[in-house]
Amino acid sequence: MKITFPDKNVREYAPGTTGLDIAKSISEGLARKVLAARVNGEVRDLARPVDSDAAIEFLTWDDTDGKSTFWHSSAHLMAEALEHFYPGVKFWVGPPVENGFYYDVDLRGKTISNEDFSKIEAKMKELAKQKNAYVRKEMPKEEAVRYFSDKDDEYKLDLLEGLEDGQITFYTQGNFTDLCKGPHIPNTGLIKAIKLMNVAGAYWKGDDSNKQLTRLYGVTFPKQKDLDEYLAMLEEARKRDHRKLGRDLSLFMFDDDVGPGLPLWMPNGAVIIDELEKLARQTERDAGYVRVRTPHIAKESMYKTSGHLPYYADSMYPPMEMEGERYYLKAMNCPHHHKIFGHMNASYRDLPIRLAEYGTCYRYEQSGELFGLMRVRSLQMNDAHIYCTEEQFAEEFRAVNDMYLRYFRIFNIDKYVMRFSTHSADKLGKKYVDNAELWLKTEKMVRDVLVESGIPHVEVADEAAFYGPKIDVQVWSAIGKEFTIATNQVDFAQPGRFGLEYRNSKNEMETPICIHRAPLGTHERFIGFLTEHYAGNFPLWLAPHQVSILPISDRFNAYALRIHGLLNNSDIRSLIDRRDEKIGRKIRDAELQKVPYMLIVGEKEEQEGTVSVRQHRQGDAGTRTIDLFISDLKAEIQRQTSV
Amino acid sequence: MKITFPDKNVREYAPGTTGLDIAKSISEGLARKVLAARVNGEVRDLARPVDSDAAIEFLTWDDTDGKSTFWHSSAHLMAEALEHFYPGVKFWVGPPVENGFYYDVDLRGKTISNEDFSKIEAKMKELAKQKNAYVRKEMPKEEAVRYFSDKDDEYKLDLLEGLEDGQITFYTQGNFTDLCKGPHIPNTGLIKAIKLMNVAGAYWKGDDSNKQLTRLYGVTFPKQKDLDEYLAMLEEARKRDHRKLGRDLSLFMFDDDVGPGLPLWMPNGAVIIDELEKLARQTERDAGYVRVRTPHIAKESMYKTSGHLPYYADSMYPPMEMEGERYYLKAMNCPHHHKIFGHMNASYRDLPIRLAEYGTCYRYEQSGELFGLMRVRSLQMNDAHIYCTEEQFAEEFRAVNDMYLRYFRIFNIDKYVMRFSTHSADKLGKKYVDNAELWLKTEKMVRDVLVESGIPHVEVADEAAFYGPKIDVQVWSAIGKEFTIATNQVDFAQPGRFGLEYRNSKNEMETPICIHRAPLGTHERFIGFLTEHYAGNFPLWLAPHQVSILPISDRFNAYALRIHGLLNNSDIRSLIDRRDEKIGRKIRDAELQKVPYMLIVGEKEEQEGTVSVRQHRQGDAGTRTIDLFISDLKAEIQRQTSV
Repeated sequence: MKITFPDKNVREYAPGTTGLDIAKSISEGLARKVLAARVNGEVRDLARPVDSDAAIEFLTWDDTDGKSTFWHSSAHLMAEALEHFYPGVKFWVGPPVENGFYYDVDLRGKTISNEDFSKIEAKMKELAKQKNAYVRKEMPKEEAVRYFSDKDDEYKLDLLEGLEDGQITFYTQGNFTDLCKGPHIPNTGLIKAIKLMNVAGAYWKGDDSNKQLTRLYGVTFPKQKDLDEYLAMLEEARKRDHRKLGRDLSLFMFDDDVGPGLPLWMPNGAVIIDELEKLARQTERDAGYVRVRTPHIAKESMYKTSGHLPYYADSMYPPMEMEGERYYLKAMNCPHHHKIFGHMNASYRDLPIRLAEYGTCYRYEQSGELFGLMRVRSLQMNDAHIYCTEEQFAEEFRAVNDMYLRYFRIFNIDKYVMRFSTHSADKLGKKYVDNAELWLKTEKMVRDVLVESGIPHVEVADEAAFYGPKIDVQVWSAIGKEFTIATNQVDFAQPGRFGLEYRNSKNEMETPICIHRAPLGTHERFIGFLTEHYAGNFPLWLAPHQVSILPISDRFNAYALRIHGLLNNSDIRSLIDRRDEKIGRKIRDAELQKVPYMLIVGEKEEQEGTVSVRQHRQGDAGTRTIDLFISDLKAEIQRQTSV
Repeated sequence: MKITFPDKNVREYAPGTTGLDIAKSISEGLARKVLAARVNGEVRDLARPVDSDAAIEFLTWDDTDGKSTFWHSSAHLMAEALEHFYPGVKFWVGPPVENGFYYDVDLRGKTISNEDFSKIEAKMKELAKQKNAYVRKEMPKEEAVRYFSDKDDEYKLDLLEGLEDGQITFYTQGNFTDLCKGPHIPNTGLIKAIKLMNVAGAYWKGDDSNKQLTRLYGVTFPKQKDLDEYLAMLEEARKRDHRKLGRDLSLFMFDDDVGPGLPLWMPNGAVIIDELEKLARQTERDAGYVRVRTPHIAKESMYKTSGHLPYYADSMYPPMEMEGERYYLKAMNCPHHHKIFGHMNASYRDLPIRLAEYGTCYRYEQSGELFGLMRVRSLQMNDAHIYCTEEQFAEEFRAVNDMYLRYFRIFNIDKYVMRFSTHSADKLGKKYVDNAELWLKTEKMVRDVLVESGIPHVEVADEAAFYGPKIDVQVWSAIGKEFTIATNQVDFAQPGRFGLEYRNSKNEMETPICIHRAPLGTHERFIGFLTEHYAGNFPLWLAPHQVSILPISDRFNAYALRIHGLLNNSDIRSLIDRRDEKIGRKIRDAELQKVPYMLIVGEKEEQEGTVSVRQHRQGDAGTRTIDLFISDLKAEIQRQTSV
């Protein structure tokens, strides 16, 4: 039989050769690290024989599916250890998750606490060292039902109910057997590093009228070093948690009388917002955008026109009923912008028209979903809508993309991926606007721009918006935490629904295409991201206080005030620590507040008209004249935003 | 008897001397122009005798009460003319109003149209020339009832029902007699200039289930010149109407699907908003304010704490009910700011804390009350709350006042009055917070600042806010139209209700005083005012487009684009008129759009690297190099905001 590899190489093997043997035929090194194989698109155990011509890709720890298989096998390993300590334990499901795996188990009255973790981990390690193979067995459904009926296992019987005959597979490693569709890694010996993370309650099938099961989370790695790094990253992420830093640095607050998910931005946070808006304003102005301002509410009729009502009603705040009308808080700015475009009587000479606004939208998120600044109910969006002709589309889209890239440079975002969601031809007119030609044409234009500019991207079929292809932007913070921060959408539908038109060069009315874009996402999520990305050590231009002036004693308050005035005149944000404290304490507190520069001023400095500069986390930075310090800082601020 | 005049002069007269004779005794000039007299505080006919010692002030056209009396007498004159043309007409009420007077009349099936105005005006003039005296007559109520019963006049009989016996007075001039409490001017001869303005329907007693009467508006003056000026001012005001200019200059729009009273700011209007916010940001930063951002909604509980609910509920949008809570759109920013102050753990060293925000508030105004940008439902307020100690109050208040004055200079507002509303001692604990000492102390501090700084102000007793004295700022536009644009309030109550505290120097917790201030009012009203004040000819720094580049032909588009880029780099807002039109047409359109500078570019300019400058409404301003033009404009922009 012919086996085709990802590099298009083709080799011949005897039918019935296993995946692992094929891997060995390539190299022993590969065979040692391979976890599973993708055979004609399906992820399978390496031990399964391949019977006829096939395309094969070997999956390792570096592949998402390889990792998932590893963690799923680890869940089985944990189950084996649990059966050892809790005989009679019953198992529901044990899937891999974003970072590890869990198993929902019925301990039949017993409990697990964090203190039990080490003994379970030790047992898992012991079982792992046995290098027990994960053995697959197929059986008829009735046999499987008989097996679990004998074990009196209502959970697996419930799972079996949903399965068709002929598809039932079991996996056994060591003394543990589970109903499981697989796939699994070859043997437990690959699991070298093991850590149980957390234990929690979880209602069976997520229904709170059902019994509560115990959900035990764990994470495993093929090397101890990977686990050590992961735990260090978690510790760093804990320190960088934007909720904690938000409190420590007084960036924002929540209040019960205002409501959940509605951040109030304190002065320090408002500085960051103002700086981001200034950056957006300048960037957008240079790119030919104009700004608008629109109300935060509109009548029901507007959202019926847009189609948000009734379909999106669950994500909106409930209406206010007044004068026989229903008013809604806006959940998006587009309809308001469409109204303005509609009022502009644009001709082809005026296009593209790019309307920008930091509009605050309100969306209903379940209380349980709210999370710091990441999931909120009020969203200040760096929104804009570009109205253009089909001919202008590619150029506009490219310009939007360039804007994203520029922002990534400014914010030192090195790792990002654009997730490009396209339509599915068989759902035209149902899930997607029925204009096959326009879909293909636009998607091609988007794809070309992404490919030409070399931007990392993945294309995902059948996940576009109803009205056009979309791009979600995923970025990774300095410590590798992933965030989805921005979107960019093409829209063929809304302009038509709103009756938007422009006069073309033939003096006919035509409907423009609309691009929705929000490169900085929302202030809420973006500042949450930046806080974690920078660990609160905001770059100079974003820092709430850029300079802390620390007089050595009361006698130098006047000099401190003079410096403060000079800095203020140069648009540099400073504060004076006038407390009756030792200079060491003042420095320590300024460091805790992560103020980029500290100026220590005493007798010598006052006499010479200088400042003793300390840089945050760097220490002493020498003595400079005030003028030189100011010009240095202005240059540093300038450099950071002019990437 | 002794008569005391406003200048404290006292003269003796025989009891029974009329006001007119007293005026004559002072000067014939005064007697010719005096309209009524204020005798011991009561405005009275000049013909009425004064019987005992009294303080007298003579009222002329320059006094509000003199003017009102003149217009009320004019209403009677109009009634006389109406009775001539419409025998049997019945009269309801005919009061003076802000600019003139009206009379509500029952024409008994007949109608009046604008075409009838001139004949009525002519008749009024004829009757005026007769110099008929307004003769006052008192009679018992029963006699009055009999009189109007005989005339079958249900309107006056209805009026009589509300009057007490012994108070009934009639006035007669020429052939017209009316039930009227007066006072009136001496005779019709003083009315020299007459203009009927408008005719409208008006339900009897304002109740739409009653009969509709005809309301006829007029205005009169003691000199023809005054009327001419007034009509010219009206014509100018019509041209300056911000609703008309808002359309012509594409500043803002309304939309039925968004809702009444909710302006959408188009790109040109958004520029003005952005410039105003920039000015406020800089001004407030220099004055030690910090900025915050707060959501547009809050729970009912917050507005119960503030006391806005239930008392202010009618002025708020109705609630949104969600998760068993009621959320309200904010009608003011104070409660959100109080929450932030409450979160700041302030010590006396941190005070004053000045929290500023251009927060958008929503207030319910009756549909019928909505008027362009002047009465709206969404309000972007230049808001700030200053939290300070009692000792700091006077200084803070003075600084706020200085900020108002600076803004007046920047916006060329020459005429303004601060209307200072104080409490009333007998309403402490009812209409006003019960702290007599603090009221007196604060009012004195406010008064002292107003007096010392020489600011024009009037003091009005018993019109303070519940929680402290307030100042409303009235300004007059360039053509003398009055606007109330800003407020400044002292607040002793809210900080206590919100439990706000700071740690004083004795380490005890103390409640701060709060100053609410909004020197630029709302964007809506302030930009409405500025539009009329400048007649849309915004000063350079505020102009939506500062420069219009007019290439003589297509060939110079590239040069135009280069200039556009250079202007943009210097933060100067320009646009290029690329239409295939003659240069004359381009100039005319730029003039209509009131763009401050036009740059005409053709062959010569391109070769020499120059621009031919035209200034709006000034014409040719010579040829300059691009660099010089840019530096001139930057200097002009700088000058205008640095007053």
